[in-house]
Amino acid sequence: MKKFMDENFLLSNDVAVKLYHNFAKKMPIIDYHCHLSPKEIYENKKIKNITEAWLYGDHYKWRIMRAYGIDEKYITGNAKDYEKFLIWAKVISMAIGNPLYHWTHLELQRYFGIYETLNEKTAPFIWEKVNTLLKSEDYSVRSLIKRSNVEVICTTDDPVDSLEYHIKLKEDKSFNVKVLPTFRPDKALNINNCDFREWIKLLEKVCSKKINNYIEFLESLEARARFFNVVGCKISDHGLESIPYMEASKEEVCSIFSKAINGEIVTKEEEEKYKTYTLKFLGSLYSKLGWAMQLHMNVTRNNNTKMYASIGSDTGYDAINDDNVAIKLTKLLNSLEMNNSLPKTILYTLNPKDNYVLATAMGCFQGNGIKGKIQFGAAWWFLDNKDGMIEQMKTLANVGLLNCFVGMLTDSRSFLSYTRHEYFRRILCNLIGSLVENGEYPNDMELLEKIVKDISYYNAKQYFLI
Amino acid sequence: MKKFMDENFLLSNDVAVKLYHNFAKKMPIIDYHCHLSPKEIYENKKIKNITEAWLYGDHYKWRIMRAYGIDEKYITGNAKDYEKFLIWAKVISMAIGNPLYHWTHLELQRYFGIYETLNEKTAPFIWEKVNTLLKSEDYSVRSLIKRSNVEVICTTDDPVDSLEYHIKLKEDKSFNVKVLPTFRPDKALNINNCDFREWIKLLEKVCSKKINNYIEFLESLEARARFFNVVGCKISDHGLESIPYMEASKEEVCSIFSKAINGEIVTKEEEEKYKTYTLKFLGSLYSKLGWAMQLHMNVTRNNNTKMYASIGSDTGYDAINDDNVAIKLTKLLNSLEMNNSLPKTILYTLNPKDNYVLATAMGCFQGNGIKGKIQFGAAWWFLDNKDGMIEQMKTLANVGLLNCFVGMLTDSRSFLSYTRHEYFRRILCNLIGSLVENGEYPNDMELLEKIVKDISYYNAKQYFLI
Amino acid sequence: MKKFMDENFLLSNDVAVKLYHNFAKKMPIIDYHCHLSPKEIYENKKIKNITEAWLYGDHYKWRIMRAYGIDEKYITGNAKDYEKFLIWAKVISMAIGNPLYHWTHLELQRYFGIYETLNEKTAPFIWEKVNTLLKSEDYSVRSLIKRSNVEVICTTDDPVDSLEYHIKLKEDKSFNVKVLPTFRPDKALNINNCDFREWIKLLEKVCSKKINNYIEFLESLEARARFFNVVGCKISDHGLESIPYMEASKEEVCSIFSKAINGEIVTKEEEEKYKTYTLKFLGSLYSKLGWAMQLHMNVTRNNNTKMYASIGSDTGYDAINDDNVAIKLTKLLNSLEMNNSLPKTILYTLNPKDNYVLATAMGCFQGNGIKGKIQFGAAWWFLDNKDGMIEQMKTLANVGLLNCFVGMLTDSRSFLSYTRHEYFRRILCNLIGSLVENGEYPNDMELLEKIVKDISYYNAKQYFLI
Repeated sequence: MKKFMDENFLLSNDVAVKLYHNFAKKMPIIDYHCHLSPKEIYENKKIKNITEAWLYGDHYKWRIMRAYGIDEKYITGNAKDYEKFLIWAKVISMAIGNPLYHWTHLELQRYFGIYETLNEKTAPFIWEKVNTLLKSEDYSVRSLIKRSNVEVICTTDDPVDSLEYHIKLKEDKSFNVKVLPTFRPDKALNINNCDFREWIKLLEKVCSKKINNYIEFLESLEARARFFNVVGCKISDHGLESIPYMEASKEEVCSIFSKAINGEIVTKEEEEKYKTYTLKFLGSLYSKLGWAMQLHMNVTRNNNTKMYASIGSDTGYDAINDDNVAIKLTKLLNSLEMNNSLPKTILYTLNPKDNYVLATAMGCFQGNGIKGKIQFGAAWWFLDNKDGMIEQMKTLANVGLLNCFVGMLTDSRSFLSYTRHEYFRRILCNLIGSLVENGEYPNDMELLEKIVKDISYYNAKQYFLI
Repeated sequence: MKKFMDENFLLSNDVAVKLYHNFAKKMPIIDYHCHLSPKEIYENKKIKNITEAWLYGDHYKWRIMRAYGIDEKYITGNAKDYEKFLIWAKVISMAIGNPLYHWTHLELQRYFGIYETLNEKTAPFIWEKVNTLLKSEDYSVRSLIKRSNVEVICTTDDPVDSLEYHIKLKEDKSFNVKVLPTFRPDKALNINNCDFREWIKLLEKVCSKKINNYIEFLESLEARARFFNVVGCKISDHGLESIPYMEASKEEVCSIFSKAINGEIVTKEEEEKYKTYTLKFLGSLYSKLGWAMQLHMNVTRNNNTKMYASIGSDTGYDAINDDNVAIKLTKLLNSLEMNNSLPKTILYTLNPKDNYVLATAMGCFQGNGIKGKIQFGAAWWFLDNKDGMIEQMKTLANVGLLNCFVGMLTDSRSFLSYTRHEYFRRILCNLIGSLVENGEYPNDMELLEKIVKDISYYNAKQYFLI
Repeated sequence: MKKFMDENFLLSNDVAVKLYHNFAKKMPIIDYHCHLSPKEIYENKKIKNITEAWLYGDHYKWRIMRAYGIDEKYITGNAKDYEKFLIWAKVISMAIGNPLYHWTHLELQRYFGIYETLNEKTAPFIWEKVNTLLKSEDYSVRSLIKRSNVEVICTTDDPVDSLEYHIKLKEDKSFNVKVLPTFRPDKALNINNCDFREWIKLLEKVCSKKINNYIEFLESLEARARFFNVVGCKISDHGLESIPYMEASKEEVCSIFSKAINGEIVTKEEEEKYKTYTLKFLGSLYSKLGWAMQLHMNVTRNNNTKMYASIGSDTGYDAINDDNVAIKLTKLLNSLEMNNSLPKTILYTLNPKDNYVLATAMGCFQGNGIKGKIQFGAAWWFLDNKDGMIEQMKTLANVGLLNCFVGMLTDSRSFLSYTRHEYFRRILCNLIGSLVENGEYPNDMELLEKIVKDISYYNAKQYFLI
């Protein structure tokens, strides 16, 4: 029996052990997609206690607490931090097979040197030990980032964001980790959202320019993208319930936009036309800027109306959508490619049924001398677990090139999540090591080193030009 | 090489062996979903011979006999029982990888002490031995149930059923296994079925009340549910080709119902509106009664018109449907939740592409202080095999809590199927044991015992309040 | 650690080793679906060099070269053969986990006795050695076929094809491998393709009969099928973006056909009606002829308009479609079965989400005394890799009978692809051997030998009547 989560955690063979400890482990981290706050990094925030770190904003954890039947008081309610932690300790202690079990213990091990498992009995001791450590300067967010060997962080930002803290961080010579913005214009696409018109006003304000029509709207969006670019942005991001694709003329879309800003009803079909046209405009813009475009697809959001009314978005009420994506995705990519304006693109899906669809669709748009121009993105959100990662990598390997993969990202709101890169790298090394152990790939350490280092670090560095 | 189906069948590591033999094996069975006949239990039926037990009604077996090219005469036709058994012995002997191979041999081992494998050569001997044993009183259906350590059986019953035998069994002090009805109103929902109006007449009769309109129809349905409740029903069940969701006013649905009982044509859209409204009414009713609602989705039935005309339903001509379910399912659950009337719910799908969809959709509706209020149901029907079970449990573990799972059911029409609980428990223990052996979960026997016992028995007992 | 691709490649247990080396390996090959040129076989073509063999027409290889970022010049462009080979050597050397890695090295081992791995360093030596060998008479295409122990080859042919070379091969007593045509009338179904009317003209010409209407069209199609039958055809094949099913009267379809040949626009709905009717006509015809019908579904073709304009079809720009197929597929099969005209049918899907759908749908239409009348086809194209094959076989085993499977085909355009049968047989033997090693199937060598030989050879021989 292997010891619980020891140094060879998830490494089931000798090649895997070598690949992880000699190569993967030592590579810096390029966390090219996360939801960290640049303000908290700039201000070098201190974390009050382990409940803040783990339970103030992590809807992954909230969901399994709810699944256990825990009262919302102890989740997002007004129970005391210590009470919440004790409940969490109880719930996680039995969460066998859930990635949170591993994330929790990797964080305890790597950041706090705690090798006990968390459960009701150990919770009081762990509460004390972690909170004491958190008081030390070694646990400021900048310290946490540095000791995690992070080289680049790409946050996720609204086009109307001032990027004040990205700019300040760029100028702060005392902190040499790059913190770059990501352009995420979901609010520009969601024409039927109740806050669409309000957001247009914010866009007008930040651009100091009135938006009278669709053309001017696109001009303002472009202005913001160019501003983001100056601040160091290399990547855009789109969260999509499904892939939109319905062709329309510019005139049609102009008139749809006008309806929306006049408060008239926009039909589903008009919405799809609007999204298609706007997404194509943006894709083309990203191509000009040399950015990578991330498309995150097949999610249904805010499914619980009662809880949405009570505690808002991103609180654990999202799920996997199952729209058909093959035709619309290939048409979208093709329409950009036809105009020579397809940017580097990363395709993520929340639904594992799409894995082979995405991995083969992207194979139709590779080229332009870019290694892995179109990427099949790392296992995302509900799929960000051992099984999901193995499935994503095997799919990519089977119908494309695993060795061109830009690898892992945290997608996290927490400064303790960098261990997810370790988790990924262990799984990667084990997958590769197993192929070698089984005689399915030669034991050529030179090639293996290159593959492991590329996926852990160099591919992302080269791909994003950072 | 492991011996064929010995005591450590499916248990590939030491922890799994311990968990199964020390804990899982000893737990009683709560078979909360099956298709047994309460009449046969009440009358303590004797089985004539192994052909009756295995081949009179088991469409799983019929399907693979047909796949082998066997003439229907030897399947549902008028061949002699011994001939049918010989043919079955031949077909099953080569059915490598099919769960029927294991079910067949588990039943031979556990009920008849036969450790030979079934094939053309052994068939005559096994025929003699089994049929001799079946003559003994130890093989009456009540004896079979008791020696299987069954505590509760939930049958599947039409709302118009008199529940005569459930009532008699309740009063029969000589048999201490609970036999409870399950409310399955498929015929109330299938407004476009040719026997809908006939069924309404049966409902009128059993309620001694004329049904003039939709409101009265719902009242009669509710009356039957309340009657079922008095008899001990704790669970409802719905078989759905796909998930219906289309909103409509009560007035609209009243008028759709009137069309149907007047023999007018009901459109597909009207059907969906009717089903949605009625299902929501029933869900709300189940919530008031404290029942669990089972939704079985994505099946296509009676696909072979010729055979349907010849031998009717449930004869092996159903298959997996692939409708998109994410949006409709979350809307259905949400609409109940918005009215505080979402009952405990178990979501089953016949299509493995839905696994992650269901397991994440349910995560949006947990709560109310109930452990695992919304459940991702055990691998069902065509998925009720080793691969399907592992997939279902891994999915649940990855995005929810495996330890809250209410576990296995037989879904069977046979009194020899309780070994399927053994089959499930072995697979469960092996999955859990493997995680421990690989260092992915601590070797904490106290926690492991609790998890295994909960999933095998206590979770169901607590969840269904039986 | 296992040696890289040695004699026990992919065989992880003793039973697998025995099954492969004693039985599977020795069986002849029936390659019942491929894209070889009968002309090249008849003319006993010599291959110029390894670049011609590997890179002139293999879009699998082109795709991963593009994924690596290689310039099209070195893929389908005018770079020199040696340059292309060097680039390929570099790309494949790092393609860990891709089936091309194994195919490449199996071909080097079996045909050229080369056990080095291909990479930038070994490329010059391998180029020399292979090209020298290719000059020898042992490497003519007939020699390659014979030393691969091939018994039957079924090519893929347009109904308007003269079958000149099939006829010549049949008469050539010096070559005893059967080379049979396959009837693939995609152009007859694709009523909306720009070359539909042109193709009708070719059909008129080859039939020496004017086609004035749909009835005459069907008569000409039937005439061609009967001609194919005389030449030895046993199988038809259909490539379908998705499964069509929309009922229509003969009159309707006649009028749709007339619109098409008059150059009028045919709507999507009309197209589906036309395809359904025509496919049913053909299915019924195949049934009369005793042929097997292959349906290949869920592919999207020519997704990259720019590259299609530049280098045409079958150049690496196809992908997986994700249409819902369950309802339409069961209706199509049922409509044929209702008229007693359902032929033997093999269902292939390019989308793994359909695996369980196909494997259960087919279970509703088995029978007629034919072993495995409806087949779940081998893992196809993007799924033709170790994971895809295992998934296909496990699915089949779980809900049907693996032992009735007609097994592997190459689907290839290359004379060096027969090693794919070896690859498949190793995976098959390993899957079966693992079940035995795990105690899930008895170690009964007689039964195991039969199962392995049947799937490798005898099932296909019996099923296709060749």
